[in-house]
Amino acid sequence: MNQKFPSTLLENAVNELSALPGIGRKTALRLALYILRRDTDYADRLSSSIEALRHDVKYCRDCHNICDCDRCSICADPRRDHTMICVTGTIKEVMAIENTAQFHGVYHVLGGIISPIDGIGPADLEIDSLIQRVATGEVNEVMLALSTTMEGDTTNFFIFRKLSPYDVKVTVIARGVAVGDEIEYADEVTLGRSILNRVDFNDSMKP
Amino acid sequence: MNQKFPSTLLENAVNELSALPGIGRKTALRLALYILRRDTDYADRLSSSIEALRHDVKYCRDCHNICDCDRCSICADPRRDHTMICVTGTIKEVMAIENTAQFHGVYHVLGGIISPIDGIGPADLEIDSLIQRVATGEVNEVMLALSTTMEGDTTNFFIFRKLSPYDVKVTVIARGVAVGDEIEYADEVTLGRSILNRVDFNDSMKP
Repeated sequence: MNQKFPSTLLENAVNELSALPGIGRKTALRLALYILRRDTDYADRLSSSIEALRHDVKYCRDCHNICDCDRCSICADPRRDHTMICVTGTIKEVMAIENTAQFHGVYHVLGGIISPIDGIGPADLEIDSLIQRVATGEVNEVMLALSTTMEGDTTNFFIFRKLSPYDVKVTVIARGVAVGDEIEYADEVTLGRSILNRVDFNDSMKP
Repeated sequence: MNQKFPSTLLENAVNELSALPGIGRKTALRLALYILRRDTDYADRLSSSIEALRHDVKYCRDCHNICDCDRCSICADPRRDHTMICVTGTIKEVMAIENTAQFHGVYHVLGGIISPIDGIGPADLEIDSLIQRVATGEVNEVMLALSTTMEGDTTNFFIFRKLSPYDVKVTVIARGVAVGDEIEYADEVTLGRSILNRVDFNDSMKP
């Protein structure tokens, strides 16, 4: 679409908005015209929130999760179990795990996973800082919660080997048939993993 | 989704982004994390383009289309036919008509259409300024190009009546079966209009 714009300001806004993922030029135009129709307050709040997000956001010195201070609210919380570290690739994964309310330890955000095709090696990730946290001797368990892809598995194994000199338990979140899924339609790799990693049935599994 | 955010800056950005039309909270989070991953330059360009769009955009003193100066490039173009005015509801409709390259006159953007349900009456629209343009006696034809809805038809009729004291031709864009559409599936109102408004076949219609 080689659209002619009546205003260069509109054209600039459409260009920048359409650089966002999943936003095409038609959608960007719709968003820009919406911003024009709203009060100036909204445009100010939107633009300053974007600027503040990118410029003022901090990363936790311990777990590298984003936060407002030097240390994130999870790492600063004395009620969390600091001997248990959950390793994730991204901030979004931390948010997903927090939403389950099933994890009471602390996190370590790698900032991605090892992916040679994207040029991401171990040195680009927060792996050394994880080893340092374990080296203090205050960590009992490292739980790996990376994506269940080839890259995730590679990263899991790399971290597992790096941690082998230390007296720390390394676990990985269970892979298996998703809750609500039909066995019939589960792929064979997942179904196979869920059979190998079967657990003892207990009272807490009562529906 | 009552998501807990690790940072209030992230939460603010998600709140503002999700106020945009068609952007839910999940998409807003994805956009915010994308902005975080990109360089600061991009966030600066995005936020300043939004601010500039809302604060610095001007409206053409003649046709009320958006523009960068006092008068839009169409109204300022001496090659356009200034005796022919196309009336549209929005800026987007001007852009759509310009894309057809079939109209060589000038525009008049009403800023909406009469819609009692949304509380939009004739006084909220640029109708008086249209009458003033016609009253100068320099306009030969006013072509109404509003949406083909009940509100559009109401607005068309209101303008038609307001213009009746003046010596000006009032036309409306043709309603009919869309190009590429099957007659079989056209709705009966549209098909009926296209029969009533049939035109003489001529050489320019050669496929």
